Amino acid sequence: MRDKKNIILLGSTGSIGESCLRLLRKNREKFNLIGVSANNNVKLLSEIVNEFDVPNVVLSNPENAKDYFGKHELTLGSLNLIELSKINCDIVISGISGMSGLHSAFAAISVGNNLAIANKEALVSAGKIFLDQSIKNNVKILPVDSEHSAIFQCLDNHNISNLDFITLTASGGPFLFTPIEDLKNIKPKDAIKHPIWKMGKKISVDSATMFNKALEIIEASILFDIKSEKIEVTIHPEHIIHGLVHYKDGSVIANLGFPDMITPLSVALNWPSRSDLNLKKFSLNSISKLSFYKPDYKKFPALKLGWDALQNPLCSPIVLNAANEIAVDAFLKNKIKFTDIFDIVYETLNSYNPFVPKNIDEVIEIDKIARSHSSQIINRLR
Amino acid sequence: MRDKKNIILLGSTGSIGESCLRLLRKNREKFNLIGVSANNNVKLLSEIVNEFDVPNVVLSNPENAKDYFGKHELTLGSLNLIELSKINCDIVISGISGMSGLHSAFAAISVGNNLAIANKEALVSAGKIFLDQSIKNNVKILPVDSEHSAIFQCLDNHNISNLDFITLTASGGPFLFTPIEDLKNIKPKDAIKHPIWKMGKKISVDSATMFNKALEIIEASILFDIKSEKIEVTIHPEHIIHGLVHYKDGSVIANLGFPDMITPLSVALNWPSRSDLNLKKFSLNSISKLSFYKPDYKKFPALKLGWDALQNPLCSPIVLNAANEIAVDAFLKNKIKFTDIFDIVYETLNSYNPFVPKNIDEVIEIDKIARSHSSQIINRLR
Repeated sequence: MRDKKNIILLGSTGSIGESCLRLLRKNREKFNLIGVSANNNVKLLSEIVNEFDVPNVVLSNPENAKDYFGKHELTLGSLNLIELSKINCDIVISGISGMSGLHSAFAAISVGNNLAIANKEALVSAGKIFLDQSIKNNVKILPVDSEHSAIFQCLDNHNISNLDFITLTASGGPFLFTPIEDLKNIKPKDAIKHPIWKMGKKISVDSATMFNKALEIIEASILFDIKSEKIEVTIHPEHIIHGLVHYKDGSVIANLGFPDMITPLSVALNWPSRSDLNLKKFSLNSISKLSFYKPDYKKFPALKLGWDALQNPLCSPIVLNAANEIAVDAFLKNKIKFTDIFDIVYETLNSYNPFVPKNIDEVIEIDKIARSHSSQIINRLR
Repeated sequence: MRDKKNIILLGSTGSIGESCLRLLRKNREKFNLIGVSANNNVKLLSEIVNEFDVPNVVLSNPENAKDYFGKHELTLGSLNLIELSKINCDIVISGISGMSGLHSAFAAISVGNNLAIANKEALVSAGKIFLDQSIKNNVKILPVDSEHSAIFQCLDNHNISNLDFITLTASGGPFLFTPIEDLKNIKPKDAIKHPIWKMGKKISVDSATMFNKALEIIEASILFDIKSEKIEVTIHPEHIIHGLVHYKDGSVIANLGFPDMITPLSVALNWPSRSDLNLKKFSLNSISKLSFYKPDYKKFPALKLGWDALQNPLCSPIVLNAANEIAVDAFLKNKIKFTDIFDIVYETLNSYNPFVPKNIDEVIEIDKIARSHSSQIINRLR
């Protein structure tokens, strides 16, 4: 056995990147960071290159390249990002969000690299294509978001035939207890205040509409090959329980913990072993209660679309994801109301029934058409 | 692979026996019941023999033998109970409670049968001897009580080196919210009313004093080879979470479910597979909250003795268990107060420092001496 795992980190300057680097600092003896990328943040990228002595460096957006001061050569552009992902290594971590991370993540598994992926949009839109490729190349796709890492850990080596159903937990977002009639007046500044996590604006709004959980239902179905009717969602505001697997013998295995991305990242990078992260100890003795609520589909109709989209698993998820990105962007720019986000996604899903994509390029084509549909709906609305 | 597992059920007419038979009725294609025993209940024993066509039958207490009407020959007495346990089979289930189940449970593993054990007293008193023998004979000891089955399932195939600590949950018993000054006035009829389970009188009182959890701390330490300081107890009145395993990377894996002995029994009999029991589905959506409290050691000093006894793991657990059995019996007979139970155990532990037992007979000898010490203390007290 080699001493160290060679890893490549795509999106090193984002929030997944930050957690991953924190993990690497705690485990310097276990990992070699052999490649990093960033989109814009050339200053932080330079610092990372110098701190971890990373030989392969890509800046996707060449605009700020002149400010680079890393000690290794910088390459530029999205084609080099794909080449970075293809360098032979033990695991590529994709921390790039949105559809822009699709090609590079797919490139990793297509050359036989294992992939730890936090990119919900990629798995939702192209999950089946990713999974088929990973099986063909005998590589692992390891989930990095806390909910799917939870299911992954609880399933462990158990045969899926023993499984009854799974439960994804949802914090319920900042408007869990807001009266339904007040939702239309929600402003972007309120929607991006998540009660538990400090996250990007897009994902914060997704959490507020619960589109986030709809995407996770789709992701779980693809990653674990579980039918939509075998996926339950529970509202759990404290978000201490991250996911549950229910077995046919009545046993339920759950994953709990403080919300910290470092743990699911560590699970993905060390599986089936684990590493000692020396984190603050979790004890139920310091948590007086955990609460649970049935989802309110009237208030959060977006959630239901997760199950609905799985009726057409190769197509509708792409449209759902694309329409949601466009609608959230419009909401954040104050072009539409909070409640319009759902209406726009719903209308896009019902006005565009795409062909079945056979590869990543076709996924991106469908995604583009869906975005254009949504934009038209938004323009008509204004 | 053979079609069916041959199993032997010791204590078939007790509560573990009842759950086990319920399980077998749901899984007739999986198991052959080739042996059963009972202590007294010859009518129920006869019915079991006839229903499951069980060829090997033992009644430990010969008194009621004349009322036997099973279709297979009945043998009598504790020596035949031991012989029953030695019949070659896939798994012996020991549902006999107290020290009277010690010899038969040990006989099973000493001839190479796997053992599913619900007998807390046996594991607490002779756990190390059991474990050593099971390793020597390469047989499995599978826990059947819900707390240890929980830990067993959460540990699964993980390396114990990845483990940080475990948490045992405790319902807190019927007096969790009773003011400490009222404990001395508790009557047996109040103590045997457990808020969650209908159980035997002895174990109900153990749950009320929390000696039950002290015994489980010892049991967990022995079964999973975990040091006492790596065992945490949390009071969890709903008792939906049965146990938690905390890993060094911050991941916590827990086992949840409705309290029903059929599930841990099914886990033990089917491991590493699981069977479909078609039970009522468990969902957090129908549970509004789970609550947790730090243990109150002033009110429940018995709990602390679990950790204390592990400082001398080969001896004190026997004395603790024996003294507790004698004290609970005296309490149930209205000879002593509820709060005397702890005092008697504590005094016995401090007045008798036994030798290290090398075998089951020596365990029983120490147990007897400890019982006699406790009885003397009780007589002095009255």
